[in-house]
Amino acid sequence: MNKRGVLTVISGPSGVGKGTIINRLFELDENLYFSVSATTRKPRAGEIDGVHYSFKTKEEFENDIESGEMLEHASFSGNYYGTPKSAVEEKLSQGKDVVLDIEIQGARNVKKLMPEATLIYILPPSIDELKKRLIGRNTEDKESISRRLHTAYTELHEAPELYDYFIVNDMVDEAAMKIKNIIEGKHYGRTAMQEALKLIIEEAETLA
Amino acid sequence: MNKRGVLTVISGPSGVGKGTIINRLFELDENLYFSVSATTRKPRAGEIDGVHYSFKTKEEFENDIESGEMLEHASFSGNYYGTPKSAVEEKLSQGKDVVLDIEIQGARNVKKLMPEATLIYILPPSIDELKKRLIGRNTEDKESISRRLHTAYTELHEAPELYDYFIVNDMVDEAAMKIKNIIEGKHYGRTAMQEALKLIIEEAETLA
Repeated sequence: MNKRGVLTVISGPSGVGKGTIINRLFELDENLYFSVSATTRKPRAGEIDGVHYSFKTKEEFENDIESGEMLEHASFSGNYYGTPKSAVEEKLSQGKDVVLDIEIQGARNVKKLMPEATLIYILPPSIDELKKRLIGRNTEDKESISRRLHTAYTELHEAPELYDYFIVNDMVDEAAMKIKNIIEGKHYGRTAMQEALKLIIEEAETLA
Repeated sequence: MNKRGVLTVISGPSGVGKGTIINRLFELDENLYFSVSATTRKPRAGEIDGVHYSFKTKEEFENDIESGEMLEHASFSGNYYGTPKSAVEEKLSQGKDVVLDIEIQGARNVKKLMPEATLIYILPPSIDELKKRLIGRNTEDKESISRRLHTAYTELHEAPELYDYFIVNDMVDEAAMKIKNIIEGKHYGRTAMQEALKLIIEEAETLA
């Protein structure tokens, strides 16, 4: 019996430390497969194509949208971001757990197309702390920081209705452990257990 | 900030070993509160009123239904079983986690009235094993065993649509640990986090 893997979406405002938590999570959990997002934004220093993102031209990306290859996609700061569908489905059916690191609009789409997905939102300890982290990152100008904070405000109003879990990023190790446990629990969720349920129902019918 | 507790419903067919798992779970998790069910069935040898069940007359129980004091109730083998509402709400608002050990009809009612409840169904390793356990229990006659097995068949068809998690009772310790982890994860669920979310949204509004 090949038990289906678990799909987890992780989102959070810019500067919350989501990337660090996800890196730690992958150190903790060997069964995780990180779905590499596709994007049309320019690579930042050190970013590798196919590892951090699958970098695409606008034309390539729009072809993938049209062919139905994007599980979700969204525009953000003038660029496309999206999740190639085939890679996700392949890993889930092999019993691998898949983690998607996507924006709130994308999370909404995934939930619509795959309702069994577990949606986790990373919260900063406080908005004040989020502001400090964005400023400390030193990669953005003042206007960009202000725009990111405004997006965070908007997201925080939508997130409570959409996401299933909310993890405060106070200590990275703790936050990663909490997510690991949530994913572990989902191995006994309705979707992951569907094959086992089918077998026991079939046995019950034989004996009835 | 008083963080709201987590409500968990545990069900499973007669003979699956649910009672043993729940006892182990309470040894593992000190924050758990066991909601004592009310029933009109006669106490078995060793059962203590207010500990195993709150034993009530038919008249007392029906008064409690009428006054809205039963969060759920169901008839089973000619007796009433139910969950007093006030005790559950009191514990949740104190931040205690509550576990309800109830039948599938009751679980359905709780889910309707408190959609944030996590519903866990205990599965036997196989139907054949369930039959052996029922026979080995030596407390029931042949007709009663056959009736319980028939109920199990029916439940197994309804359970996949209703319950959130399915735990196979292969090893008691493992099964109890899995449930403990699921409850732990729910501390970061939408309902338990509602107060924390409210506070951070308020902070965001002040700074916006």
